[in-house]
Amino acid sequence: MNTINRQWRIVGRPEGQAGTDHFEWHEEPVPVPGPGQVLVRNLVLSLDPTNRLWMWERDTYLPAQKLGQVMRGIAVGRVERSESEALPVGTLVSGLLGWQDYAVADARAVNRLPADPAMTPELWLGLLGHIGITAYFGVTDVGKLVAGETMLVSGAAGAVGSLACQIGRILGARVVGVAGTADKCRWLVDELGCAVAIDYRREDLVEGLARCCPEGVDVYFDNVGGPMLEPVLDRMNLHGRVAVCGAISQYNRTDVSQFDPGPRNLFLLVVKRLRMQGFLTSDFASRAGEAIRALSQWHRDGLLRFRLHEVEGLENAPAAMNMLFVGTNLGKLMVRIAR
Amino acid sequence: MNTINRQWRIVGRPEGQAGTDHFEWHEEPVPVPGPGQVLVRNLVLSLDPTNRLWMWERDTYLPAQKLGQVMRGIAVGRVERSESEALPVGTLVSGLLGWQDYAVADARAVNRLPADPAMTPELWLGLLGHIGITAYFGVTDVGKLVAGETMLVSGAAGAVGSLACQIGRILGARVVGVAGTADKCRWLVDELGCAVAIDYRREDLVEGLARCCPEGVDVYFDNVGGPMLEPVLDRMNLHGRVAVCGAISQYNRTDVSQFDPGPRNLFLLVVKRLRMQGFLTSDFASRAGEAIRALSQWHRDGLLRFRLHEVEGLENAPAAMNMLFVGTNLGKLMVRIAR
Repeated sequence: MNTINRQWRIVGRPEGQAGTDHFEWHEEPVPVPGPGQVLVRNLVLSLDPTNRLWMWERDTYLPAQKLGQVMRGIAVGRVERSESEALPVGTLVSGLLGWQDYAVADARAVNRLPADPAMTPELWLGLLGHIGITAYFGVTDVGKLVAGETMLVSGAAGAVGSLACQIGRILGARVVGVAGTADKCRWLVDELGCAVAIDYRREDLVEGLARCCPEGVDVYFDNVGGPMLEPVLDRMNLHGRVAVCGAISQYNRTDVSQFDPGPRNLFLLVVKRLRMQGFLTSDFASRAGEAIRALSQWHRDGLLRFRLHEVEGLENAPAAMNMLFVGTNLGKLMVRIAR
Repeated sequence: MNTINRQWRIVGRPEGQAGTDHFEWHEEPVPVPGPGQVLVRNLVLSLDPTNRLWMWERDTYLPAQKLGQVMRGIAVGRVERSESEALPVGTLVSGLLGWQDYAVADARAVNRLPADPAMTPELWLGLLGHIGITAYFGVTDVGKLVAGETMLVSGAAGAVGSLACQIGRILGARVVGVAGTADKCRWLVDELGCAVAIDYRREDLVEGLARCCPEGVDVYFDNVGGPMLEPVLDRMNLHGRVAVCGAISQYNRTDVSQFDPGPRNLFLLVVKRLRMQGFLTSDFASRAGEAIRALSQWHRDGLLRFRLHEVEGLENAPAAMNMLFVGTNLGKLMVRIAR
């Protein structure tokens, strides 16, 4: 067992992309759990677009991080010391364990994961974790997608987007993905079962939407926010739904005041009786089991592909985070901290 | 019985406010109903913000009107000749009967109204018609307002808004109205039971919202659209709802492309898990009875005030319509065609 806990702490508020200036490497003794707590050895750390949002000075759906704190992050780890009967040593857990080797956490603040050797820590961080649960409820509960409908997914080659596309296909919908490279678009069509894909860097969106959604859009699974919403609203069908999952196009700003203006055609919500609804995994915490059962079954049946993009070493986390915004990761981005 | 049918026909697409240039007065013989049809003598004509939208060249939730057609309008009238057993002579009906003295309509295309002398044609056009039904379902079904919550209503002194305010109060919510004159604001508080009101022409909206909604907004009943949404989203509470009823601030434009940009902070839909939903009365046609029962009961119990602003004479309809956009009408605007 190590005696040193390596950490990345947040020490600055980025304008634009976050960089190594905004994080500080810190080493301290491995902490000791108190009563009701556990010491978790982090194994894999999830990097998500929302991490950038957590660096804002302003509160979002979580309180803003204070400068000097360990950078917040979702990780899967194993209990190495336990002062809680609920979580014996060796238990696999997930939670907001931070960008560090070791975390002390209240036993109630982490999720206990089943000891199934087929379900690796990586799966619990992605397919069966916040990523998969977000995609599942976004499509089924918020989007209320029905077989035969058309679902448009932006950020379709991303972690959540690629699962949303496949869930839509499994449910019998026609799925159209939007991504930023020809390779990603090919992957969407050839491997994930999208009917067609739009490379938004090479094709005008209005034309792309007309080409790919000749019968309109019933559900828009929106991962990107920003200017794309306006042409999509123009193509939405009567009683369509917009499941607002995220706005990665906007996160590299200091605050909402720097966000792009919203669509001029919001009034189409009335004309077409549309519903736009934002959601987070945490809203579905009590129903997570439903999503995990469906996703693991589809995974066992070979219906769901889930690609990992693994970066080796905690020391590389700050640089790796920006891959999400440049679009260079292919699959769910995670940092390997230990095996 | 008259032999001449006087009509206003639409002959131009306005830029900005509609004016007498865009309508043409026309007189023709009273038409004769065919099999399954009735001849309706229009009594009162409803003027609604949405009329302006119907003058666009582009389809909205109804097909665009062609130039030369009788101007579309909701009216209540009485059957004067009938070729349908379902609607005997003397029956009171409502429907899209147009800006004219007489309309020939398919019996199935109009609503038969009960012969209750306490329920006047004016009530059927407003409180118990599309206005009341819109307010009722907007608050209860789309807004899902619950006792103890705060509801913000824009266009609160308008026909739908003033009913939405009162329905909110009856359901036990704290209602905050936004209107454009001190008189209207006094009316909202003194007579309709709003807790407080914001005169948006005299007070900065951000300050007004902070003053009037210190505990945030749970439901925003939006009649006006435009720039007001951004500061409201900033004040919405977790899991808040925006019932998008209309966008009167935007209708005097030629097309959506001239609408104001949308809010920069739409991403707050995710942060606060908000739902924005557009709706029209027609979506609730099968449940209209539920609304009419509740509204007429509240009306009998003296809980609901409904103010009429009656303009005398079909010839004054085009000029009267603009009162809605200048804000000079006090109460539901309608044109008296006959008694």
